[in-house]
Parts: sequence; C-alpha cells; structure tokens
Amino acid sequence: MASSLNRVALGSGTEFDWIRRFLERAAARTVDSDAPDAGGRSGWRVHTGPGDDCALLQADGARGLLAVSTDLSVEGVHFRREWLSWSEVGYRAAAAALSDLAAVGATPLAMLVSLALPSRDGEDSAVALMDGVARAASESGALLAGGDLTVSPAGATVDIVVLGTAARAVLRSGAGAGDELWVTGKLGAAAAAVAAWDSGGEPTEAAREAFARPRARLREAAWLVERRVPRAMIDLSDGLAGDLRHLAAANGLAVVLEAAEVPVHPTAHELAGTDPLHLALAGGEDYELCFAASPGSLSGLVDEFHDVFGISLTRIGRFEAGHGVFLVGSNGERRPLELAGYLHFKGTASS
Amino acid sequence: MASSLNRVALGSGTEFDWIRRFLERAAARTVDSDAPDAGGRSGWRVHTGPGDDCALLQADGARGLLAVSTDLSVEGVHFRREWLSWSEVGYRAAAAALSDLAAVGATPLAMLVSLALPSRDGEDSAVALMDGVARAASESGALLAGGDLTVSPAGATVDIVVLGTAARAVLRSGAGAGDELWVTGKLGAAAAAVAAWDSGGEPTEAAREAFARPRARLREAAWLVERRVPRAMIDLSDGLAGDLRHLAAANGLAVVLEAAEVPVHPTAHELAGTDPLHLALAGGEDYELCFAASPGSLSGLVDEFHDVFGISLTRIGRFEAGHGVFLVGSNGERRPLELAGYLHFKGTASS
Repeated sequence: MASSLNRVALGSGTEFDWIRRFLERAAARTVDSDAPDAGGRSGWRVHTGPGDDCALLQADGARGLLAVSTDLSVEGVHFRREWLSWSEVGYRAAAAALSDLAAVGATPLAMLVSLALPSRDGEDSAVALMDGVARAASESGALLAGGDLTVSPAGATVDIVVLGTAARAVLRSGAGAGDELWVTGKLGAAAAAVAAWDSGGEPTEAAREAFARPRARLREAAWLVERRVPRAMIDLSDGLAGDLRHLAAANGLAVVLEAAEVPVHPTAHELAGTDPLHLALAGGEDYELCFAASPGSLSGLVDEFHDVFGISLTRIGRFEAGHGVFLVGSNGERRPLELAGYLHFKGTASS
Repeated sequence: MASSLNRVALGSGTEFDWIRRFLERAAARTVDSDAPDAGGRSGWRVHTGPGDDCALLQADGARGLLAVSTDLSVEGVHFRREWLSWSEVGYRAAAAALSDLAAVGATPLAMLVSLALPSRDGEDSAVALMDGVARAASESGALLAGGDLTVSPAGATVDIVVLGTAARAVLRSGAGAGDELWVTGKLGAAAAAVAAWDSGGEPTEAAREAFARPRARLREAAWLVERRVPRAMIDLSDGLAGDLRHLAAANGLAVVLEAAEVPVHPTAHELAGTDPLHLALAGGEDYELCFAASPGSLSGLVDEFHDVFGISLTRIGRFEAGHGVFLVGSNGERRPLELAGYLHFKGTASS
C-alpha cells in the first residue's frame, strides 16, 4: 500500500515531493486516532493510518486488528502484456497486495478486485485475470468478497484490496538502535527478468517465475511474528534501497547495510552486463520481508526457518542512531546508499 | 461496488455475460460464510460476499458489521477532463464510493485512495484530486487511512475503498411481494449534464452540480434504517432501470414502476430534444437511495424526512410475485422496462 507510493518514477526530486505532499494531504485530514471520539463509530477506531504497509482498524470487544491495503497494478508501469498472460497479471497483482498483509503480520481474510479492462480484450481476459486473482486468494486463504469492473479506454488497471486480521501488528516503526536487519529469501530475480526483457532478450525461467508468480511471505511472517522476532517490518516492493529508506525514516534511525551480506538471487548473476548487487538493491518487486530483530533473537532459528519454508533468512545489516541508509562495501568503506527505489519503466513512466 | 459492475457499456448481451461470469468466478471461490471454519480467521467471517453494494464482515465479540466497498472512476468512462476540475474528479469518485456505504445503511469509518495519474499532469493534479477526496471524506466522517499512487501511461484512474460500520445492514434482498418501492430525491440531473456535454452544449448549473458534486445519502440512509423502514436497498449508480433490475433479481420478485410517479429532476426538463423520463430512468449516477418498504410504513414520515433533509421521499412502485422490471405508463399500460443501465460514453466504451 503506502510502500508502493513511490512506484512513481517521475525522476528524482519530483516523485518524492509528490508522494510527500500526497501523504501530508491525507494525514492532515486524519484525526488523532487515540482521541476518544476519533473514528469511534460503533466502537471502531483507526489504529494506524497512512504511511505503513496497511491501515489498521480496531473494534471494541474484538480480538486483534483488521488490516486493510489497496494496491494498484497498471499496464505499462507494473507489467507489460507481452510479458505476462492475463492469469499471471491477476496472480501477480493479488500477490503484491497480499504481501502488504504479510508485512504487518496479518492473516488474509478477504479480497476485493477492481478491474478496468480494454474492451478489445473482451470477457475472456477478465475471466483469465480473475482466475489468477482467485488462485492467489485461494492459496492465501482470502475470500473473494466483491469488486468493481469497468471498461478502460486505454490499458488494463487492476486494484486489489486485501483485508486481514492480526492478533498484534508489526509496523514499520518499532526498531531500536543496535537492532539487526534481516531479510527473507533471495533478491534481484524479478529485476533480472525486467532487465532481460528491456534489453530485448528473454529472462531465465527462474527470473520469469519470480516476476510472474511472486509469493507473498504470509506463512513466513506469521512464523516470525509468533516467535515475536520482528520489531519493525516492511515488504520489499520498491527495491531494498528504497524500502530501507522507508524503514530508516519510520524509525528515526540510520540503516547500515553490508553489501557482502545481501542475498543476491543466483539468476541475477546470469544476466550479462548488469551488476547483480544493483538488481538486488534497486530492482524491486521481490516481495520478501525485511525486518528489525533484537541482537541474537534469531540465534538457532535460521536453520529451522529454512527447514520449514525452504528459503533463507539472512542478516544484512543493523540499525544505528542517525538518519539515512548506508552501504558498507567489501573493503569496509561506508557510503550513503543513493539508489532510487523503483527503476522499472522509467522511460515509460516519465514519457 | 458490485452495483457498478454493470458500468461496462459493451452493448447489451455481452456486458451482462461478462459480469455474470466475473461474479460466478468470484463466488465459486468464496466458501459458504456460514460454515463453521469459513473465513474464521481470528474470529472474523465474511457475512455477505459479492453481489451487494458492500461486502460485509463480522468479528466475534464486536457489535455490528464492517462494510467494505471498492469503486473505480476511469477517465473517458466515468468522467472527462474537460468537464471537471481535478478536485471535482476526486470529490465525485469519493462520493460514489460512499454511496455504496449508504446503500447498506453503514456509517463511514475510513477511506483508502488508489490513484494512477498521467505524469504530464504532475503533482498539482494529485494534490487537487486529493483535496476533493479529502473534502468528501471529511463531510462524511471517514478518515483517510492509506492509499496507493502510481503514474498512468494513459488517462487518470481513481479507485476509492470505503469502510463503514453498521449495527445491522440492509441488503439488496429482503423485500416481499406487496412491498412499496421508494426513492429519495430527484432523478436525471447528472444524466442531463452528460447529455448536454455530449451534444456540444453546456449543462445548467443544477445539472453540472449534480454530476460534479453528488452527495452520498448517508444521513438519509441512517435515518431510514434507524426507523427500520428499508427492507431491501440499493443506491442509484447505474440508472433506475438498471438498478431496479438488480433489486428485482436479488429478491426473486418483479418490480412494477409507475412512470407518472418517478420524481424527475426539474433540470432534466430543461434539456431540449430529450425525454426527461428517459434521463431519470436510464441516466445513472444520481446516487439516490431506492428501497423496499412495508405498505404504509412511511405514513407520516415523508414530511418529516423532507423537513430534516430538504429532499423528497417518493413512492414510485411496488414489488410483486414474478420476475423483471415493468413500467406502467400514464395510460395504465404495463410493459417490460428494457432500458440498458448505464448509457454514458457508449461510444467511448465500445471503441
């Protein structure tokens, strides 16, 4: 949700000004949710508003929180028709939205789907797209509860709304100086697919699979939250560099990333002419989890995590007093990490 | 939400087949919410799935229901840039979504906003659009709780998600044979604006206002629901003819509409060359409430309603055993009402 606010690739400066003004605008109208009568409709209140991966609502008398997120996928920005089948477009859009629930440690409850589709593609495209959405929903346990469908005079747009429940939610904030920075899985495979397509080639099967069928780390998040490991968490939708900036800002801390520790996906090494680390840092849409953990809190859990889920858990850095994101190179040199978040389609987006 | 599923103007036949398949696809994956373990995540369940104006969720221990709807506004389909300011685009999109909450008798709690905007319009358009959204949210008591923002390679798309609470919800179903059919306000003004623009002219101020700044009938719905008047309700987004078809189908009943009783907006009479009744029946986007009431249950309340809200409450027909929607002309002749629901932009949409 809010994490994807900076999928706006308008060039540096402008894009972030826009996002900032957008959020300020939204937040200015959002009254303090702790005030007694704020949003206190029939005993409901807004626990967390704009700026996290999900909005969180709380009902008097109900256990836990309700998490809500909305996630746009736009043809020509988030996907191209030559790259994906309609079913994959639907699956991918749903997985991206579900990843926002994973980021706060919520369990999927329901999904609503808004589609604007070109009439030239007819109903078969809608049905195929919904097949992909329904498969992602079904795998995650979310029920399809409604939606909206309209014709689009231009390309296809999919907006997925997800609702989930959480006994307690993990926010982007909550980390302390000294906390370790961890990430699930391997990074850069989806970016390798986009880079291959952009250069006129075809991605490897592994890269294509990562782009077309990302998996929201819902069970992994639940496992970690059950063990009270993540103190602050985000899902990697904009790219590690961009998302770490969000995490640093949300915590009022500096994030120090160890270049040598970043778990670059093997297929990112197979792409000629591109720095694999760059794909892992700037690529985006890995939909892995990145979180803060107290020092040592994952001791003895890393192997178990791998045994259960078949993916890695890697310590990639730490939180320190300060501001911004820093990269420590293999030579020990430390410099500010200046990569823009979401670099895909920069040409398309700014045209 | 689901009411706007038939905003797809692909020509008769095709559009409804598409919608039907879309809904079947969604419903097929939605397990029976009454089953003990269906959607029973942390004590939450889906009370009402696809096919009503909102999805309704219920939490164990919490009072009432949570209503959720998602509503798309697409440039060139739901609005044209020459007709509206960005602020009006935002206000109108938000009001349309809030109207879905009114239709189930819910009180607004929170709103999430997804925007896909052409980069040529820059950040000012986003800020102006959010101003309009925020005004509609503020007027309704909804808190802006999050959103998504991305660039669009073509026109603007706005998706508004609304969440509301309801002590008890009014569905599209629940009417009985013999029930009266009622409508709030006057119909056809927004359609008169579109018709004026389409014919190269300018709408009257009243018509333009109705199109650009529709008011979701939230307080009116709450007043009626408090008095337990509506047994089944829908908001008029697709046009009376199209929405009555939904109401008839949801209740497994026939709806008989008295042509002479339809409260046509005065400004619809000011448009030369167009049948005002046609605008009221087929135009759409009036965002008035249409509901079933037990015979006589509104006796003595019509004047009070007008005094409180300054708009009319009109009995326009009745529910009977049977199927479909019928129009009784001023000569007493009864015929099936065959108007398509949403006629705006037919050329654009099918191009």
